[in-house]
Amino acid sequence: MQPHAAPGAAGPGRGVAAPAAGRRRRWRPGGDRVTVVRRSAGDRRAQLVEIGLELLPTTPVQDLTIDEVARRAGISRSLLFHYFATKAEYYAAVMDAAAALLRDHVVPRPGTAPAGQLPGMLDRFVTWVETYRDSYLAFVRGAHAGDPGVAEVYEQTREQLVAVALAAVPLPDGPRQRQLVRAWFAFTEDLVLQWTREPTLPRAELLELLVEVLGGLRARAAGPPAGRG
Amino acid sequence: MQPHAAPGAAGPGRGVAAPAAGRRRRWRPGGDRVTVVRRSAGDRRAQLVEIGLELLPTTPVQDLTIDEVARRAGISRSLLFHYFATKAEYYAAVMDAAAALLRDHVVPRPGTAPAGQLPGMLDRFVTWVETYRDSYLAFVRGAHAGDPGVAEVYEQTREQLVAVALAAVPLPDGPRQRQLVRAWFAFTEDLVLQWTREPTLPRAELLELLVEVLGGLRARAAGPPAGRG
Repeated sequence: MQPHAAPGAAGPGRGVAAPAAGRRRRWRPGGDRVTVVRRSAGDRRAQLVEIGLELLPTTPVQDLTIDEVARRAGISRSLLFHYFATKAEYYAAVMDAAAALLRDHVVPRPGTAPAGQLPGMLDRFVTWVETYRDSYLAFVRGAHAGDPGVAEVYEQTREQLVAVALAAVPLPDGPRQRQLVRAWFAFTEDLVLQWTREPTLPRAELLELLVEVLGGLRARAAGPPAGRG
Repeated sequence: MQPHAAPGAAGPGRGVAAPAAGRRRRWRPGGDRVTVVRRSAGDRRAQLVEIGLELLPTTPVQDLTIDEVARRAGISRSLLFHYFATKAEYYAAVMDAAAALLRDHVVPRPGTAPAGQLPGMLDRFVTWVETYRDSYLAFVRGAHAGDPGVAEVYEQTREQLVAVALAAVPLPDGPRQRQLVRAWFAFTEDLVLQWTREPTLPRAELLELLVEVLGGLRARAAGPPAGRG
């Protein structure tokens, strides 16, 4: 590994406000200890991820250029690759951070009454897509395009929302139930993405409809185990 | 443009059985007339598309290599680019052909009684995905990945299935109705793709469920025009 270059040495050195400056980590992902740094490796990674998040609403992840990210960070392209071994690793870190923000926003707080969990989650999900439509679309597209890092993060996020929905119906957590609730999530995602572009029904009706469709699956989802027919 | 090379000149020249040998077109897409050819340009294009279709079940469209397709056709890479100006144009032609096969298989024959149209279409759609799962997944992924040619063909295909579903419910063909039925198709596609990998409910129940979920949307879909609330 190369030694730690001074931040800004290769770039214009513009004021780099660290979004995660509070977290002072003294290690690098590679495992080497760094004792004297102007900006810790953890902070620098967080800053680079933050830049990716800022670009995400207008730039699908696969179109983020390392040159642009490095330029905004005021570092050289090669220094960026010091923190992220590959472009794919950087993209995965950005997607991971975006998905964590989404989950944090959408998943019910511990202690929320069961009856309020699903409507609250759907309301916040719609708000999220309303606010970050392009970014969310990029996330979905990245996952579908088969980028392994993005697909994994997408599936983790979806499975967390599916688990909330299963508990809300309520349904036991089995393979058939997961399948049906995942398909319901595909319905929800598709409809909300369409609706945020063209709201063809009132928002309150959209939310009621999403709850209704999930409820409608209850009889089939609670049916006998697979292999009966 | 380069002159027409003799077929097989640059390859092993294996027997190239033309799937569309009956169609003797005397023009090339570029518009130039070709009067003397061993294999007409239209036939050669059809043959190259057919090779792509054969590879599609095991190779997502974005992973088809021009070298492999040219090798199988017994022609040079540069001759392939004589028939398709770019890789993207070739991929789009393969997707287009796959989608035409799908539509031809799935959409009800003229004269089918209205009551039988939706169950028949869903049954054939499930059969299609059962038979060509990887190929269909590649189609969906290509469309979601944002390849403009693939996305357009995918949307054309989906809109045709949506139109059949709208007529079957029945529902008028308006923006709200299309939105809801498109979202139902997202549900259907997601569930069938999951189910073909892991059949967690009997096939007949799967088909009934798909019809039920569409029927359940009727009340909301037939509601007042958008903008009421």
